[in-house]
Amino acid sequence: MRAEILSIGDELLRGEIVDTNKSFLSERLLHLDVEARFHSTVADDRADITEALLRAVARADIVLVSGGLGPTRDDLTIEVLAETFGRKLVLDGAVLTELRAFFARFGREMAAINEKQAWFPEGAEVLANPIGTAPGTLLEVERKDREAALIFCMPGVPRELHRMMDEQVMPRIVQKRRAIAFVRATLLRTFGIGESNLDERLRELALPPGVELGFRTQFPDNHVRAVARAASLEEADEKLRAAVAAIRERLGVLVYGNGEETLEAVVVRRLDEGGRTLATAESCTGGMIAELVTAVPGSSAVFRGGVVAYANEAKTALLGVPEAWLAEHGAVSDPVARAMAEGARARFGTDYALATTGIAGPTGGTADKPVGLLYIALATADGTESRELFFAFDRERNRRLGAQVALDWVRRHLLGEALDLPRVSTSLPGARSEAKPSEGHRSGTGTRA
Amino acid sequence: MRAEILSIGDELLRGEIVDTNKSFLSERLLHLDVEARFHSTVADDRADITEALLRAVARADIVLVSGGLGPTRDDLTIEVLAETFGRKLVLDGAVLTELRAFFARFGREMAAINEKQAWFPEGAEVLANPIGTAPGTLLEVERKDREAALIFCMPGVPRELHRMMDEQVMPRIVQKRRAIAFVRATLLRTFGIGESNLDERLRELALPPGVELGFRTQFPDNHVRAVARAASLEEADEKLRAAVAAIRERLGVLVYGNGEETLEAVVVRRLDEGGRTLATAESCTGGMIAELVTAVPGSSAVFRGGVVAYANEAKTALLGVPEAWLAEHGAVSDPVARAMAEGARARFGTDYALATTGIAGPTGGTADKPVGLLYIALATADGTESRELFFAFDRERNRRLGAQVALDWVRRHLLGEALDLPRVSTSLPGARSEAKPSEGHRSGTGTRA
Repeated sequence: MRAEILSIGDELLRGEIVDTNKSFLSERLLHLDVEARFHSTVADDRADITEALLRAVARADIVLVSGGLGPTRDDLTIEVLAETFGRKLVLDGAVLTELRAFFARFGREMAAINEKQAWFPEGAEVLANPIGTAPGTLLEVERKDREAALIFCMPGVPRELHRMMDEQVMPRIVQKRRAIAFVRATLLRTFGIGESNLDERLRELALPPGVELGFRTQFPDNHVRAVARAASLEEADEKLRAAVAAIRERLGVLVYGNGEETLEAVVVRRLDEGGRTLATAESCTGGMIAELVTAVPGSSAVFRGGVVAYANEAKTALLGVPEAWLAEHGAVSDPVARAMAEGARARFGTDYALATTGIAGPTGGTADKPVGLLYIALATADGTESRELFFAFDRERNRRLGAQVALDWVRRHLLGEALDLPRVSTSLPGARSEAKPSEGHRSGTGTRA
Repeated sequence: MRAEILSIGDELLRGEIVDTNKSFLSERLLHLDVEARFHSTVADDRADITEALLRAVARADIVLVSGGLGPTRDDLTIEVLAETFGRKLVLDGAVLTELRAFFARFGREMAAINEKQAWFPEGAEVLANPIGTAPGTLLEVERKDREAALIFCMPGVPRELHRMMDEQVMPRIVQKRRAIAFVRATLLRTFGIGESNLDERLRELALPPGVELGFRTQFPDNHVRAVARAASLEEADEKLRAAVAAIRERLGVLVYGNGEETLEAVVVRRLDEGGRTLATAESCTGGMIAELVTAVPGSSAVFRGGVVAYANEAKTALLGVPEAWLAEHGAVSDPVARAMAEGARARFGTDYALATTGIAGPTGGTADKPVGLLYIALATADGTESRELFFAFDRERNRRLGAQVALDWVRRHLLGEALDLPRVSTSLPGARSEAKPSEGHRSGTGTRA
């Protein structure tokens, strides 16, 4: 069973809008085990739309069309659909009444032009749009030697399309094309392991039949997508649960969460659950850790504050870093990182304090201390741990990765796990980099078990 | 002159990635007055790619292909391109040497599999990729009765594709296809005025013939895009310059910059030019201002540091906000914002200090101090100015808008302009909001002219 997704609209071809409907619809089709084999976009042009529709029913069994359902002259989808497949347009009285009611709810009278949205190709099914004026359409088109193709037309407005896909289109695909399997999927979020490593570690894992894994890099994380197929939804759920348990067991602490929950949200939630508090002392990450944490709703329960200590004087005055250490070791050094963390912990009176100091780039490096050098420290009641890291990305990603390592340390400490060094790689060729441990700075003074 | 944009990759068809390359490429083509007439996406499948390429050269004169240039078995673009148009693959020795050097820079040896990326269809031009391992390709394909079609293949990674499009592809289109009208465009970045207001203010403006304006909301900014078309590049440049001068004269200080330069980059540049320094004291923005500023390369010359004072104790201990004021006025109040700014200015020893305190949401509001309430203060050598603002967005956008207002104040002060209140609206219905001045807090103690 193959599908084609066809968007109609000049605005897409002018690049004014990023077409997010296609990825949404493709992902939804996967839930029904239907492969979106082709994506196309054509202009608000009769000839182009006709050609695209004919091609679509020749090469796909399900065609999802979006856009061109509005009331204006540019909106041609329904007209061209009827023409292309030799149907008359007929007025649907019930839809017309609903349209009038829709406008009445907003205290407005319906313009004559909107009547257009109540006309459909003869024999088509109308798909309700409870949140907009453009109803959708399902037209079944007979084909030689094959089952009829199903053409679904939906509005281009994402929220209307999302709802129509879930409430109107998906059930009809299931109802009309039984053969489809049931699919459940989830995302497991990992940090601190490269994509190829992840793949390798999971290769030998015994998974239930019908379960497939995919890998996705979303800098600085690498995610595992597990997809389970079965003859019923319950069975698919069961298989997915078993697969997730097996993956979590194999990867252990590397999995920090699943679904949409970010690392900072996990850290805030776990701090809150444990009744712990956090402060930050940032140099090279420049407030990014504080900003990530405070972007999480409810973070004020656990985050007391932070210092962005860019200038040396700020490190001394606000965090109590001894001037002599700055002179002796330099601002970008392990002792300074440790003193910053300890200073923040004392000043904010928190359980945890994170510190970063480094050279994010693009300039500012020396032979001794090159761009990408970074020290991170975590001060806790058990003492202070620190590491020297080295990243070979650009400024933005060096900072982002540093912030992620720091946050992950808090999570690991809360779980009683060792602070591991990140092995991060992206799937981008050339953007590959790994943090390198510096043996000299490896051990903290901490006494954690 | 018509173009087709063709993406290749299973991950797009599975909906794992939103394809942003297409809108980028379409928009860039418009600069050359080339219309992207078709967008297509096909799988990593030989037959599908062949068919898509043949269709593209039949209906378009310029074909921009992205994806499938990697080193793995799934990456078929170059192979299928050569096959489809009857070319042999030939090894480019210079590219191979560069590839090896690329890996060496990261201290790694090139895997045998990567050699694949040095093979190209005979007669094709190689397009340099300075930031990745996949070079691009231009193949000219002869057609009956028409000019040859130009097929450009680029990597799918957005940042590599963006750079290759601008540096390699655009100049070649201009060079090989003179017929094109010459187009120059620029983006004028504004903050503090709504989109419809912007449109209204510019409607009566006398612009040179051939100049068109477009509006684009990019929260929290609104941008004006000016496009000039002419028979020569010089003439287009001249028209654009005249249009930009007229727009800048009409909008005055509302225009903060143009092109890609963000507000924070403008602020850092202007502080640097004026030899001034900045510090921050953030509560509700949680480090976002510091993070925006320090994301700008070279910001260490002007940014001394900041305090993220989430807890009351932090406001007192690190910024010297009197405990009595916190008790009397509450943490979210005008006096506290002012004390935070003054405390930061004194502690960091800077020319400017910005402070924010507010209730970003989604919870934490009271009848007295609702979600969206925000105080901003700017301390300078001239005294301290502050305002009460009210935003009706979600947490993320309330914070972002607050940070932008604060940064804009520094810019305005450096220009000797009044600190105006923002009039921000987005193009999304329902997300419209305007900052409301509170008369009671309007005047600062400052003595600026």
